[in-house]
Amino acid sequence: MTLMATEIAEQPAVLERVLRDVPAQLAPMVARLRATSPRVVLLAARGTSDNAALYAKYLVETVVGLPAGLASPSAMTIYGARPDLRNVLVVAVSQSGGSPDLLEVTQAARASGAVTLAVTNAPQSPLAAAAELHLDVEAGEERAVPATKSYTAQLLALWLLCTAWGKGDLTAADGVPVAADAMLMRSADPADELAALLARADRIVVSARGFAYATACEAALKLMETSYVAAHAFSGADLLHGPIAMVAPGEPALAIVPRGAGGAAMLPVLDRLHAAGATLAILGDCGRHAPSWSLSLPPVDEALSPILQILPLQLTALRLALARGTDPDLPRRLSKVTLTR
Amino acid sequence: MTLMATEIAEQPAVLERVLRDVPAQLAPMVARLRATSPRVVLLAARGTSDNAALYAKYLVETVVGLPAGLASPSAMTIYGARPDLRNVLVVAVSQSGGSPDLLEVTQAARASGAVTLAVTNAPQSPLAAAAELHLDVEAGEERAVPATKSYTAQLLALWLLCTAWGKGDLTAADGVPVAADAMLMRSADPADELAALLARADRIVVSARGFAYATACEAALKLMETSYVAAHAFSGADLLHGPIAMVAPGEPALAIVPRGAGGAAMLPVLDRLHAAGATLAILGDCGRHAPSWSLSLPPVDEALSPILQILPLQLTALRLALARGTDPDLPRRLSKVTLTR
Repeated sequence: MTLMATEIAEQPAVLERVLRDVPAQLAPMVARLRATSPRVVLLAARGTSDNAALYAKYLVETVVGLPAGLASPSAMTIYGARPDLRNVLVVAVSQSGGSPDLLEVTQAARASGAVTLAVTNAPQSPLAAAAELHLDVEAGEERAVPATKSYTAQLLALWLLCTAWGKGDLTAADGVPVAADAMLMRSADPADELAALLARADRIVVSARGFAYATACEAALKLMETSYVAAHAFSGADLLHGPIAMVAPGEPALAIVPRGAGGAAMLPVLDRLHAAGATLAILGDCGRHAPSWSLSLPPVDEALSPILQILPLQLTALRLALARGTDPDLPRRLSKVTLTR
Repeated sequence: MTLMATEIAEQPAVLERVLRDVPAQLAPMVARLRATSPRVVLLAARGTSDNAALYAKYLVETVVGLPAGLASPSAMTIYGARPDLRNVLVVAVSQSGGSPDLLEVTQAARASGAVTLAVTNAPQSPLAAAAELHLDVEAGEERAVPATKSYTAQLLALWLLCTAWGKGDLTAADGVPVAADAMLMRSADPADELAALLARADRIVVSARGFAYATACEAALKLMETSYVAAHAFSGADLLHGPIAMVAPGEPALAIVPRGAGGAAMLPVLDRLHAAGATLAILGDCGRHAPSWSLSLPPVDEALSPILQILPLQLTALRLALARGTDPDLPRRLSKVTLTR
């Protein structure tokens, strides 16, 4: 049993803990956010956490009702930019809380007047200490290099925070742990089948829109990290603005199509991928297509669906790594904490 | 002679026209921006224009001194989010000014209180009409589907706008058209050599940091569009947070390493790519490495360098397309104006 397999399997229990323990952190945080009423939210992160930040961006825009954007740390860390950040909330998302660039961004942002929030799985980390506010995602220690349970814990913790901030109903997430358990059970065979479909693939396009775009990015990252496939994630719209040209007939293309507006917006993209002759794999609604692989998604709210969507794709990355003889727990050239500036 | 070749060759003259004509547009625009003093800048775009927007993000942060982020249109167009955008500048960048999603974003942003700016090559377009402010990049009609001269015109026009807004010295760009001409002349043979190096490549990693990250993204897009290579752009920092695992020994990796802080930050990334056994191609400073391909960059300011960096890479995409027998002017499945929502 690999660490990655163990941590994938832990996720229903982790999500249950997040639902039980994270809400207690939220009241003072939300009070502070309401008191400062930031005008805009900027998110900074790297790797898997960057995909959680992408998910949070959609939540901030749709649930909180504030404009949000993804910031790149390098403007501050490389060029020393110190923009005026009064009335800006800067959110740094990092599993380890240890990346020097996010620490520097948080320190500089705080000095420039921003409200700063660190979202980590490491309450004793430098990043957690540097930010004014800290959200502990309570995923428990993660030991495999490819992040799995810390990612879904980040998503749910960020959903809880944004929903509380936006005065939404936190109980809407009550069913998530049970749904995650069911999704994992239901995913075992389909993950093997998708891994078999990808067995000889050297490259794959992964696409989605809206909330599920974070899933596309994270699934691509997992495939790159564990199985060394050139997995390339595109928003469905961006795909049509150029990269669709490169899709070769027979090349695998994975689309995530949940119920809801983001999934509906993918239907023309499925048509284009089909017309390109791609070998289609669809997680969710297949529309008019009969793909080479498919797995349905449970009927949960689209904003919560990414927490479930990633589960079969984590399993697929794991199975593909094992089939290829690579070590999913320790991909070549990677370590658990990456230090970048 | 392909349209793409003609338009690549036109760029020095286009840049000269931009330098001559765009400054006259700037005074009322800058006056309006100063009067409204936005607190943050959000940029929305697709395809090549999205890479120009990425470049502009760094300019806003470092030259104007405001926080900036890339927005995804779908929060507004798919989910109907209408965040409060007072004191926000929303910039939509689009060559054609015709994409429905950017039009909707601009209209919705304007209705939500934002100052809106459209940056287009089409002053009669719906997008130019919808935005409060319009910056015409004056590239002249572009007929090849892969954008080339409209991209470098966007970069220079955005540099002029941000520099004027940040009270910088516009004459710093005076040498750009001559430098572009020299760069194109100097690039003819190296572009052939790089195309030969990529002749059998099915995938390639392209990496840079800071301003040059826009070049990496745009070079990757050109290779995907014209030569159907799975060209995957990563910021040097993001590459080390996972995707470096997938780089196979012998696989080509192209790095853009200009003089300046962004280039210096790439040196550890070059070390990691070298250690991974990648076939290195370096545009700029090779550091301690002896890459399989290299081409030096002229000693211009790092913020202006992307206008020159892309030129040999456009030529490479063109030559590779011709070598592969694809039509660079009309890549499969693409049209000049892509309509997405």
